[in-house]
Amino acid sequence: MTKVTIRHVAEAAGVAVKTVSRVMNGEPNVTRDLQDRVMKAVDQLGYVPSMAARRMGGRRSYLLVALNDRQNTINNWRSGRGNDWIDQMLHGAMLTCEAHGYRMLFELVQAGSEDLDRKVVAILSALQPDGIILTPPHSQNLALVEMLTRRNVPVVRMGVPGKGVGFGVFMDDRAAAAEATRHLIDLGHQRIGFIAGSPRFEASRQRLDGYADALHQADIGMDEALIAPGDFTFESGVTAAEALLSRSDRPTAILASNDEMALATLHVASRLGIRVPDLSVISFDDTPGVRLSVPGLTSVRQPISEMAAKAAELLIGVSRTGETAPSDHLLPFGLEVRGSTTRVT
Amino acid sequence: MTKVTIRHVAEAAGVAVKTVSRVMNGEPNVTRDLQDRVMKAVDQLGYVPSMAARRMGGRRSYLLVALNDRQNTINNWRSGRGNDWIDQMLHGAMLTCEAHGYRMLFELVQAGSEDLDRKVVAILSALQPDGIILTPPHSQNLALVEMLTRRNVPVVRMGVPGKGVGFGVFMDDRAAAAEATRHLIDLGHQRIGFIAGSPRFEASRQRLDGYADALHQADIGMDEALIAPGDFTFESGVTAAEALLSRSDRPTAILASNDEMALATLHVASRLGIRVPDLSVISFDDTPGVRLSVPGLTSVRQPISEMAAKAAELLIGVSRTGETAPSDHLLPFGLEVRGSTTRVT
Repeated sequence: MTKVTIRHVAEAAGVAVKTVSRVMNGEPNVTRDLQDRVMKAVDQLGYVPSMAARRMGGRRSYLLVALNDRQNTINNWRSGRGNDWIDQMLHGAMLTCEAHGYRMLFELVQAGSEDLDRKVVAILSALQPDGIILTPPHSQNLALVEMLTRRNVPVVRMGVPGKGVGFGVFMDDRAAAAEATRHLIDLGHQRIGFIAGSPRFEASRQRLDGYADALHQADIGMDEALIAPGDFTFESGVTAAEALLSRSDRPTAILASNDEMALATLHVASRLGIRVPDLSVISFDDTPGVRLSVPGLTSVRQPISEMAAKAAELLIGVSRTGETAPSDHLLPFGLEVRGSTTRVT
Repeated sequence: MTKVTIRHVAEAAGVAVKTVSRVMNGEPNVTRDLQDRVMKAVDQLGYVPSMAARRMGGRRSYLLVALNDRQNTINNWRSGRGNDWIDQMLHGAMLTCEAHGYRMLFELVQAGSEDLDRKVVAILSALQPDGIILTPPHSQNLALVEMLTRRNVPVVRMGVPGKGVGFGVFMDDRAAAAEATRHLIDLGHQRIGFIAGSPRFEASRQRLDGYADALHQADIGMDEALIAPGDFTFESGVTAAEALLSRSDRPTAILASNDEMALATLHVASRLGIRVPDLSVISFDDTPGVRLSVPGLTSVRQPISEMAAKAAELLIGVSRTGETAPSDHLLPFGLEVRGSTTRVT
């Protein structure tokens, strides 16, 4: 039996080969009538246009790969903490890819591991993606960005400015922490506790700096005793909140560097008989848990889904136009005010 | 320049072609030493073994595709409710795939849509997966399972018994709801409210049946007024909880068919000045929000990650052995008892 090719389909449908290709690749702006004619011919002839065939034939793979932190992702999965970050990333990037006939896979690679480069090269080899989205902390890894760039793989760095080495798609963590802190200062708080994030992530330092900025601007002296270390886990939030709330001169408000540690603060406060918002609490992630908790937590909203959508758009653009001049894209954060923050009593 | 092939790599590394292939496909049980020799040769020669090449050459694509409900997934993303189900599915299936040199993609297709079959055929054509994982409600769609089976695509149906048409990987929703209800009965509750799930999902009816079973076994009359409709959204949970809790003979406990509706019940109770666990509440999903809420919610744990891992295993097995005789796999649920349920006062 002769193998059915795209030419047979085009002939049977009475359309150009290019049209068949556009229908099969799910590209937009193909009329319903053309889609129907092509799909009818495909069904009748039993044509199977594989992605493999598309890829062997052309320059593009129609595939983007996001590299995510292995340790963090698996820990979150195992502990049942959820992975809102991945969820939001998929939301933005998958739907954008879908709209352009692309697909996105994500891969878990271990930041800081010896064989990181090797693993990434194996991924490039196996999947030949049209572009790579690096998420934190990989996006901070300049050597990795440069390795990919040397291999002519377009790269978007999520969460940090690209500064000319890859595209950058990010928000201003420092400004966001300053705004959250100012919100507390405006409510009359002077003793504001801060629970820091994991030092593995650049954003953790930015958030601490923003907290310091806001105190400084309001002429409130920085009290080191009000800064507790954390590593983004619930457990570290419990330890930090206990340290802050067991002080005789305890803070009247706490800014936690993520949702887990903010929810841990609610638990510790409840156990110590401290009512929230008698203690005001702000979270740095607007994840489902903090919205649905009682009370709902005031929180900084990171534009994760929007950043991922932008990242996918940039890479699809490069693959279509070949234009690779890197650019930086700052996306706005939000401060969602809910019942967990109130005027100091 | 001659194209570098797998033979060149094998020669340079002094190993069999098959060994190179195993290293490149990330298959397990390859010694570190062999991995190093092969990767060194790969690096020196600049060999690029594409997935496309693997696929053009062989029967297998090393790719599994999960089909998820489009409407539900996108609604959850948009509303910021989170998608713990997808998260857990990725956890189980991605890590299983990874361990066997496979990859998993998930695709969003609209259950009940006219062009469902066409969309699925387009996905098969583009990706040529070695198997398909159907999640609810797609897994209930017998016509879809049969269409895939006719095309010789191995199928796992998640959440429902396969009953000989595809593999089935599921838990016993009815028994789980009965156990949750019995937990409340054992605590002395007699007036137990039930918030039902969306009728689009088979599991919703199973859960209602299990609730009825437990009441029946305990000789407690079923009061239709204590059964409130819901559709798995927070909003529907608010409406249902308001209806149940505003009655003069209100229930002393509520079993909600998912996490959102259980958290909505907490909010309504808080607003009405009813303390939980003075009202006992059980959730049917053990998602991060219900564990971290104050109080943590007693909940039924669905083995989603385990089901997804089993699904991936079954499909990889088929693709390796060609053995496709369908089988059914019942996985155990759990009941996590937390602070939201207590003895009736």
